[in-house]
Amino acid sequence: MLEQLAHVGRDPETGGYVRDAWSPADLELREWFAGEAGRRGLDLREDRNGNLWAWWGTPSPRRPGVVTGSHLDSVRHGGAYDGPLGVVSAFAALDLLRERSVTPAVPVGVACFSDEEGARFGVPCVGSRLLTGVLAPERALALTDDDGDTLADVLKRAGRRPDALGRDDETLACVGTFVELHVEQGRGLAGEGRPVGVASAIWPHGRWRFDFRGRADHAGTTRLSDRDDPMLPLARMVLAAREAAERRGVVATVGKVRVSPGNANAIPGLASAWLDARGPDERAVRALVAELAEAAGATWPALAAPASPGDAAAPARSAGTGGAVVREESWTPVVAFEAALRDRVARAAGGDTPAPILPTGAGHDAGILAAAGVPSAMLFVRNPTGVSHAPDEHAERADCEAGVVALADVLEELCR
Amino acid sequence: MLEQLAHVGRDPETGGYVRDAWSPADLELREWFAGEAGRRGLDLREDRNGNLWAWWGTPSPRRPGVVTGSHLDSVRHGGAYDGPLGVVSAFAALDLLRERSVTPAVPVGVACFSDEEGARFGVPCVGSRLLTGVLAPERALALTDDDGDTLADVLKRAGRRPDALGRDDETLACVGTFVELHVEQGRGLAGEGRPVGVASAIWPHGRWRFDFRGRADHAGTTRLSDRDDPMLPLARMVLAAREAAERRGVVATVGKVRVSPGNANAIPGLASAWLDARGPDERAVRALVAELAEAAGATWPALAAPASPGDAAAPARSAGTGGAVVREESWTPVVAFEAALRDRVARAAGGDTPAPILPTGAGHDAGILAAAGVPSAMLFVRNPTGVSHAPDEHAERADCEAGVVALADVLEELCR
Repeated sequence: MLEQLAHVGRDPETGGYVRDAWSPADLELREWFAGEAGRRGLDLREDRNGNLWAWWGTPSPRRPGVVTGSHLDSVRHGGAYDGPLGVVSAFAALDLLRERSVTPAVPVGVACFSDEEGARFGVPCVGSRLLTGVLAPERALALTDDDGDTLADVLKRAGRRPDALGRDDETLACVGTFVELHVEQGRGLAGEGRPVGVASAIWPHGRWRFDFRGRADHAGTTRLSDRDDPMLPLARMVLAAREAAERRGVVATVGKVRVSPGNANAIPGLASAWLDARGPDERAVRALVAELAEAAGATWPALAAPASPGDAAAPARSAGTGGAVVREESWTPVVAFEAALRDRVARAAGGDTPAPILPTGAGHDAGILAAAGVPSAMLFVRNPTGVSHAPDEHAERADCEAGVVALADVLEELCR
Repeated sequence: MLEQLAHVGRDPETGGYVRDAWSPADLELREWFAGEAGRRGLDLREDRNGNLWAWWGTPSPRRPGVVTGSHLDSVRHGGAYDGPLGVVSAFAALDLLRERSVTPAVPVGVACFSDEEGARFGVPCVGSRLLTGVLAPERALALTDDDGDTLADVLKRAGRRPDALGRDDETLACVGTFVELHVEQGRGLAGEGRPVGVASAIWPHGRWRFDFRGRADHAGTTRLSDRDDPMLPLARMVLAAREAAERRGVVATVGKVRVSPGNANAIPGLASAWLDARGPDERAVRALVAELAEAAGATWPALAAPASPGDAAAPARSAGTGGAVVREESWTPVVAFEAALRDRVARAAGGDTPAPILPTGAGHDAGILAAAGVPSAMLFVRNPTGVSHAPDEHAERADCEAGVVALADVLEELCR
């Protein structure tokens, strides 16, 4: 099935995928999902927040189902597996249950969450965050893409109703348990020599936008001493982030930069950098951001008042003295998956020996659901190089098949 | 007249102008030029390289004329004066000559050079460089803009003939003398208390593209020790450029950066920075570039073989070991304007006291023509803040009028 999707949104130059939420490529993938659901006689629903659900059996808040799935959108120039592997494996596992003549005691669903990567609007897991109410619809609708279009504009253009967005307890109550299968994004399983593992926890992680303001001017005629060039504090921040991450035992990345107006022969007036920071310890991550904000001359309110666990995807906060403004674009506290479910999944997925249990630095819709109280678990499929969010992302075919079998075993166990 | 152009290509958000070569805004400005020429009964010509000429009288290689003018395109989000002031003042000075009932002994021309800023294709002064033959047409046609369109594509779309591009001795031979009026891009005249000055020389200047290659990967799951993050050497280059510029008495700017794929949650695979460097001493400028290239792990051939004065706009050279590749996108050696013409212009422009003479760090079409052997001079109009290539660029109305009078005086002197 993954091969059917191999052409959608593929950039022939990089070999990577560009599948922004609600782009033509994403709409094509959603149509593919609808077709797979229809072919299997599943009941297709799109909830108010654009998430897709294909049900075998009819769930209700009184009779919640077991759901598996992932997402179909991609980071820009990402790989073929991150997201689609989980959706394709979900359909394949359901096929396997039917081949095994399993009659599930509860409905079984396949889910496709909308805009997991946040490649277009900057905030990840938009679909699951709206569903669970941790992202306010007003904030989501006002998010803008690189063309200046808001999510509201984009949804309208796709024929959706922006005013319907928001927490959806009815849909959520139909999900008794959620299991997400995903390609591993590190080399934990490669080291263990096992094709499938189970997640213990998702590291706390967030995104912060640093805006360094300077004074736009001519690159040839402005004396060095007269310059207020925002590229200099940006460069210092990039180097300081790496140094502080090493010191604090976390990871920090600047993967997106915007320099305005962006003329080779002009000193920029504004230089923006997006900081992604994650780690096993929430305090260490937030201390790193506070340290960088302070070094940039911005006072950072989170230093005084660390975010509470309920503070996920809080509205952007900004504060600046001197030239820098720091805004929190997203924040997700640590998510530890329920231990009893985790162990049950590891036993069901592991065959003779329970599947290995490992933490991850990547955010997932399963983490958003878990934080909202939905019993959730994750399966990882071995990634030999650990490369992800890049065209070289890969999993062996045999490991993907082992993932489908493991997922079917887990579903069979959970829907007894 | 400048007010007639105030709306063209103006970004209401920044107040700056976006007037890329051959964009709809640029085409509108070219139409305006044609209209102004027609209204004055001037003979309009577009040469093979897209430069516009409006002639009062008929020039020929045997009877070359006195030409004044500048350009109408802009850096992105630049000001209203850089370029248009010179074209508008040219028409206004011609009007003044007619009011004074001057009968020129030689033809008088108003010129508008194509793509002076290089905002779209990265190479400045494309029109005058093609005209004088220092830019090879094959190289120019292959230049690409941010959308991946080549100059050849863009010219075809604008109804021009790409195969006609190249050195044009016939057109050049019609230009006996060239005088370009331009808003000053520093505060030299503000310090002298004079509205109009004359250029002594244009600093040697160039643009270099630094491509830092790394390995694209996931921002959350890739250990720091496993990373090859190209943002780090880019940041080091930005800081080293400033430090080396101070030490070597030149100016260096990184005003354009491109990070690919540009996801906030992915380590980039490629980070590119454009370095603009200029200064009074050519050796110091080239030594700075060599030093930065070496620090980035790229060997830089120009270190061993400094460019000769005829080496302007040489084909890009690249060399790299380690992760960096450095390419020279443009290089213009120092241009000292002819001393006799310079002093004659300063006397004519200055009224009772000759106009002050000052160097500039900015490149201009007058510099390209001067380097090609056309007797050329420049007038500068006072810029109270020195800000240029930015929306705040400004000149007082009275100073602009003084510029027109000075230009008319100079033309009257030169076309006796």
